[in-house]
Amino acid sequence: MTITIIGIGLLGGSYALSLRDKYPKMHFVGVDASEIHGRLAVAKGIVDEVLPLEIAVPKSDLVVLAVPVNYIVELLPQVLDLVSEKGTVVDLGSTKRMICEVADKHVNRGRFVAAHPMAGTENSGPSAAFRELLPEKNVILCDCEKSNPDSVALVEALFRDIGMKIHYMTPSEHDLHLAYVSHLSHVTAFALGYTVLEKEKDEQNIFDMASTGFSSTVRLAKSSPAMWAPIFDQNRENLSRALGDYIEFLNQYKNFIDERDVQSSIGFMQRANDIRRILAGIEKK
Amino acid sequence: MTITIIGIGLLGGSYALSLRDKYPKMHFVGVDASEIHGRLAVAKGIVDEVLPLEIAVPKSDLVVLAVPVNYIVELLPQVLDLVSEKGTVVDLGSTKRMICEVADKHVNRGRFVAAHPMAGTENSGPSAAFRELLPEKNVILCDCEKSNPDSVALVEALFRDIGMKIHYMTPSEHDLHLAYVSHLSHVTAFALGYTVLEKEKDEQNIFDMASTGFSSTVRLAKSSPAMWAPIFDQNRENLSRALGDYIEFLNQYKNFIDERDVQSSIGFMQRANDIRRILAGIEKK
Repeated sequence: MTITIIGIGLLGGSYALSLRDKYPKMHFVGVDASEIHGRLAVAKGIVDEVLPLEIAVPKSDLVVLAVPVNYIVELLPQVLDLVSEKGTVVDLGSTKRMICEVADKHVNRGRFVAAHPMAGTENSGPSAAFRELLPEKNVILCDCEKSNPDSVALVEALFRDIGMKIHYMTPSEHDLHLAYVSHLSHVTAFALGYTVLEKEKDEQNIFDMASTGFSSTVRLAKSSPAMWAPIFDQNRENLSRALGDYIEFLNQYKNFIDERDVQSSIGFMQRANDIRRILAGIEKK
Repeated sequence: MTITIIGIGLLGGSYALSLRDKYPKMHFVGVDASEIHGRLAVAKGIVDEVLPLEIAVPKSDLVVLAVPVNYIVELLPQVLDLVSEKGTVVDLGSTKRMICEVADKHVNRGRFVAAHPMAGTENSGPSAAFRELLPEKNVILCDCEKSNPDSVALVEALFRDIGMKIHYMTPSEHDLHLAYVSHLSHVTAFALGYTVLEKEKDEQNIFDMASTGFSSTVRLAKSSPAMWAPIFDQNRENLSRALGDYIEFLNQYKNFIDERDVQSSIGFMQRANDIRRILAGIEKK
């Protein structure tokens, strides 16, 4: 079996590493716009060889699109043109609505499966890939009824084999929920980093006064703009609503502070404390 | 030497544990409003005995105020009334201006040292205390010129002995910087937790779709409202300004999303990425 990974970064690379552990005889081909990343991926044992997309796709049983979502939208029609009659294409993008809309227009729609593994770190590139990223995590599949049963079966089997838990949703549901539980937290972290850098001009103060709590809250501000800008753009309606809600609650809370309404301030925080119960669930996963 | 810890929680308890490692013969007395916490602190070996404040303070060489900042303001005059002629009082509160103003009015001002260790977790109570919390971290001392040299020398020596790095600033500087690098990140986390809980009514979706990135960003929303509400209230002017700046930048960023200004969105995130350099410094500490 031959698997081609287009975009051998954190997600594509980690997926390949997990599969190789399970299936040492699978053949892995890498496709990457960066020659350096390609060489690194071979050196790190993520893929066996690097080939141009036009050569790799037709001879693959599975093609994995793991590039930023703007490139997924761009490459998907071309990949569906090239895929063999028995081949399957899966994407791992963090948005699903626009990608599925592009797929819906293609004659080979049935060969495509839309997926999103709920895992990531603030790092990117093949050197960020690690085999523990995906096992035990959740993966969302969308619009499976539009995919051929054999393609869905292959994609599901491979995710299950590396220990992932599969959930099903429509692309619209996926994008709405993701705006709140993932895209929003990235924006809040970027804005926190931005605010502190803009306002705290003496960086020595940040070094001396920031604790591990600050590091944790701002960590996602290290994430790749090239990856996130297209995600935010494709999911702009949901994200804008989530950001609007967040800003509204922040203004509400700022009023409690300005009015010295300590009881309401405590009530707000107690409600937020309830996230403890949910985090316990996530951390157990 | 006898040290009394008033408030045997995360910070007071961790300070005691670090000192006991270094000085096994020191005698530690605990004072706590909660009888259960007092018993737990003795059982955990944080203090040797629990006594009422009126008995503990006069016979102590050092009294450590490690209660929420509203209680520090309340208890400080009483503790300075009771402290012996050779005794020293230090507080570990997360605000410094109001506490120092209260101290300034007391005849025994010289016996007081205002301190703030830059360390914490989202947990509280004696069971949250651990000996690794403070070593290698920074501690800020304020208005030292108003404290007796022997009191400053004692407090500095003990912080240094447990491996802390000492910095000096005015209470106003401290509170301004803290608003940006600590208080703001707590509010952003509380508001993120609040927003997700309010808007994502189906909690199963949060369980299934949230990744470790969300957990990290929202972690501080688990923090104690009883501890943070008085901090935010005492530092309300600085915090309100920091929150105002943050909301302004968020609105700016929301506009980039709404206007599909992807270049500005990328520019904003790239600026925020610079926090990577600063976090590397913090994580090395």
